[in-house]
Amino acid sequence: MLSKSLSEALFTCAVLTKKKMDDLLPNEFSESQIVAAMRYSALSDGKKIRPFLLLVCAEILGTPAISALDVAAAIEFVHVYSLIHDDLPAMDDDDFRRGNPTCHKKFNEATAILAGDALLTYAFEILADSKTHKDPSIRCELIKILARSAGFHGMVGGQMLDLENLNNKISKEKLANLHRLKTGELFMASCEMGAVLGHATMQERQALRYYAHDIGLAFQIRDDILDHKGVSFGKIELDETHPKKSKENASIVDVVGMDHALQQLVLLKTQATEHLKIFGDKAKILHELADFVVTRER
Amino acid sequence: MLSKSLSEALFTCAVLTKKKMDDLLPNEFSESQIVAAMRYSALSDGKKIRPFLLLVCAEILGTPAISALDVAAAIEFVHVYSLIHDDLPAMDDDDFRRGNPTCHKKFNEATAILAGDALLTYAFEILADSKTHKDPSIRCELIKILARSAGFHGMVGGQMLDLENLNNKISKEKLANLHRLKTGELFMASCEMGAVLGHATMQERQALRYYAHDIGLAFQIRDDILDHKGVSFGKIELDETHPKKSKENASIVDVVGMDHALQQLVLLKTQATEHLKIFGDKAKILHELADFVVTRER
Repeated sequence: MLSKSLSEALFTCAVLTKKKMDDLLPNEFSESQIVAAMRYSALSDGKKIRPFLLLVCAEILGTPAISALDVAAAIEFVHVYSLIHDDLPAMDDDDFRRGNPTCHKKFNEATAILAGDALLTYAFEILADSKTHKDPSIRCELIKILARSAGFHGMVGGQMLDLENLNNKISKEKLANLHRLKTGELFMASCEMGAVLGHATMQERQALRYYAHDIGLAFQIRDDILDHKGVSFGKIELDETHPKKSKENASIVDVVGMDHALQQLVLLKTQATEHLKIFGDKAKILHELADFVVTRER
Repeated sequence: MLSKSLSEALFTCAVLTKKKMDDLLPNEFSESQIVAAMRYSALSDGKKIRPFLLLVCAEILGTPAISALDVAAAIEFVHVYSLIHDDLPAMDDDDFRRGNPTCHKKFNEATAILAGDALLTYAFEILADSKTHKDPSIRCELIKILARSAGFHGMVGGQMLDLENLNNKISKEKLANLHRLKTGELFMASCEMGAVLGHATMQERQALRYYAHDIGLAFQIRDDILDHKGVSFGKIELDETHPKKSKENASIVDVVGMDHALQQLVLLKTQATEHLKIFGDKAKILHELADFVVTRER
């Protein structure tokens, strides 16, 4: 993927990861609708940024992306589970996701909770499987990184903080911490897992984590900016025809203002690319990704 | 534990597992209430049957129970997560569990969903850690067994079937399948994980799985019988002062009648103990557990 343009590489990654997710998910719809719900959410279109980070980091370090697709799918299953649960009425209460009804709207709340649980569990089943990687110590390392970043001291902790601060005034620092947990942790895990697959040195691994930290924050800030402009992900387009939700997640634009948010973006991008120096030209596509993250319009 | 009486051994297992869970759970309540919710549900009293199965199976095969406590705690975290999610309003809608308010009643729905997610994720983090077992191939094996039994083709699949059959007429066979998935799978995983820790032969491993399958079903049937008598777990005692729920889970007593359910119990107990023959006297406590499961009054 490193020889492609960013948009080609993103497209290739999205296609390959979706195909792998499709292959890994069961096909039986017979007895219950849980598999249908898992497939509905997991196979909807998404950017697949986390798989992209993983595959690119592995490839920069010499491990072919194609051999890391099971791990990429596992990360994306965890991301999808988090979206399904975040959309629930008790959480962010969203009716639409990427232009389609959310899982609990398409099915029902119980099915959405269980489909999320099942996807999270399945991610670990995949990572523990010898088909995913021949070395069990690598598999354990991947599981530890993913579990730590997704759990209470990572993504789930971030979602909890977000809910606890709905409609509240929140400090800039607290919001950055919340974003780091909610979005940054899984970005960092994606890069770190790629580094592990590529047998990175500690210095390389740390550099990729720092890079992921910065673009994770930048990604979230760009989301807030786009939300503010009202064009994010097609979700807002739909929301314009729906009544505004009573719950509002904390937004960086509300806390520091649009100008400051845009300055933050530039700063984070510069910082992110600094961390890539040790990789030289090999990391070109990660520079381009950083550009994309801070300038994207959807 | 094998030299103790059943009640002593169950008590010892419950104390040791709870202590280990307490040690493994973080203590920070500072930033958010997620850790408080995890601790509230995980450290409430429970029988700890799954840890007991694991520890006893390991010990029968020569591995000291004390070395398997992290694994026992991980299984119990998965069990607790399943209870938290099952109790949610969108699921079984229970206000009380073991005589105390359920997690979503004590905190709120969002916190309960996230605390469940966090406990599930944490279980895999523990199992992947080298402190839990020095051999990464054993750790991967444990994770695979637990994930498979807890996921869509196991416990979560069973809960889905249960919800899809609320208030419905259901066949005896379908109900047995539902119980096997919802309760039996995690029982089987507990014994199988104990077998893996004890370096069991395939024959020993299979025998313990079959045993767990039978007492898992028996456990569920006994639950239904006690529910029918209205004395199960202190939950029903409390429910008597609360209005009857509109949702009724499928019950074996309703499907085959009390007499047939009691006959089934005897049959399953006989079958379960047959599988223990290859272990001779060493498995005495598992015979006693089978007795306890089919005769217990709470």
